[in-house]
Amino acid sequence: MIGAGKVATHIATHLSLYTEICQVYSRTSASAEDLAAKLHCEATQDLTALYTEADVYIFSLTDNALPEVIKSVVPHLQKGVCIHTAGSLPIDVFKGVATDFGVLYPMQTFSKEKEIRWEDVPLFIEGNTPHAIAIVKKVAQYLSSSIYEINSAQRAYLHIGAVLTCNFANHLYAIAEQLFKEKGLPFHTLLPLITETTAKVQVLSPLQAQTGPAQRGDSTVIEKHLQLLEENPALQNLYRAMSEDIARYQQLYANDKL
Amino acid sequence: MIGAGKVATHIATHLSLYTEICQVYSRTSASAEDLAAKLHCEATQDLTALYTEADVYIFSLTDNALPEVIKSVVPHLQKGVCIHTAGSLPIDVFKGVATDFGVLYPMQTFSKEKEIRWEDVPLFIEGNTPHAIAIVKKVAQYLSSSIYEINSAQRAYLHIGAVLTCNFANHLYAIAEQLFKEKGLPFHTLLPLITETTAKVQVLSPLQAQTGPAQRGDSTVIEKHLQLLEENPALQNLYRAMSEDIARYQQLYANDKL
Repeated sequence: MIGAGKVATHIATHLSLYTEICQVYSRTSASAEDLAAKLHCEATQDLTALYTEADVYIFSLTDNALPEVIKSVVPHLQKGVCIHTAGSLPIDVFKGVATDFGVLYPMQTFSKEKEIRWEDVPLFIEGNTPHAIAIVKKVAQYLSSSIYEINSAQRAYLHIGAVLTCNFANHLYAIAEQLFKEKGLPFHTLLPLITETTAKVQVLSPLQAQTGPAQRGDSTVIEKHLQLLEENPALQNLYRAMSEDIARYQQLYANDKL
Repeated sequence: MIGAGKVATHIATHLSLYTEICQVYSRTSASAEDLAAKLHCEATQDLTALYTEADVYIFSLTDNALPEVIKSVVPHLQKGVCIHTAGSLPIDVFKGVATDFGVLYPMQTFSKEKEIRWEDVPLFIEGNTPHAIAIVKKVAQYLSSSIYEINSAQRAYLHIGAVLTCNFANHLYAIAEQLFKEKGLPFHTLLPLITETTAKVQVLSPLQAQTGPAQRGDSTVIEKHLQLLEENPALQNLYRAMSEDIARYQQLYANDKL
């Protein structure tokens, strides 16, 4: 396991229930040792000390670090399939360096503090050879039964979708939390609304599920909200842009709703 | 019940389990009749035909329609407390027209197609007299046990919070759905991520829960995503603005996370 961040920790912890993780590498010694202790295996922060005879190498690093680490590690490996877990990097980061390689992208948000239900996590996989695909699939099956084979170009958009629906939606929650703090309102009262909003899109298309002032073209409310946000220009701009975009979607895709 | 839209329908249907709704008014006859049939009561689309001796009048209309309807209806009422359900309108829309009046704002998103768990819905109430407050509270207690007394100025921000976390978050889902459709990707694979994102903020602050390229300052991924969105300038702008704002929050409120 090359990497000991949030994604690496969740993957390795779950995989260790079914297979042996023999070594954990991390640039920082504390992270490597924390994860290795959990997995009862060896830790290293020295890339030249990596085992070279593993069956599988999982690279779970930041997109910035990954290409460099691949270049310095992979040429020394004697065998094994190299897999990375990044949403945004193409399979080709291994090209010309590794022989059998692939990608296993778990589309989920991981926190150090919170357990994950792996059975619910969709995995998007890719491999450069039938052998690589078979091995990536085997690793994937230890984690989840929701497995999709897609290519790197599609995966890039998948990651954008994840950023939109996870990171950006969560940022809206962070903005609301801050606004509520300033106005003496309890943020937790928004939680049932947040839960219901996401429950709705489990059964309705988001376009169908849309409600609110922008959806019904209620310009009186929109103008009032923009005035109330006068003291917060960044939020005012965001409010305007999102409201205009909701109205645009309602028009553009009106027929899709029927 | 004055109004027969989504909010009116959900409120009236639940209230009718505990108390008698004697009449439904709606501008459109079909809506009035649909709801009245559910409640086994009379329907009208004539404002001059409203009962004038009810104990409570609930005005559940669009913000644009509400002030006008109040002005034309309330002077003819013989008794009763007037209540509106709008997040954005102050209690003062009743001032000088009604004697006892108030607000009951259910902070939730309502769909015609989907049942609501009323016990989970936070209600924000206000009244102009002790009698009005007592009556609004009584009506509220039929719906939910999560009741908060706040003033109109606070409620306006409450509604902005609801727009941010419900309508705007849902719009991000709609954008992702459209993008996935264009790229041949299954939108439903995003649902576990959406569910997990909202599950996280039940236990962590959104600021703490944040992940993704903007949170970790991964400019390589952000630039790649912006390039991939070249053909969709509206989405490209939104992606840039949100990423910058996430980075700004991470800096501004870094200390709040600790």
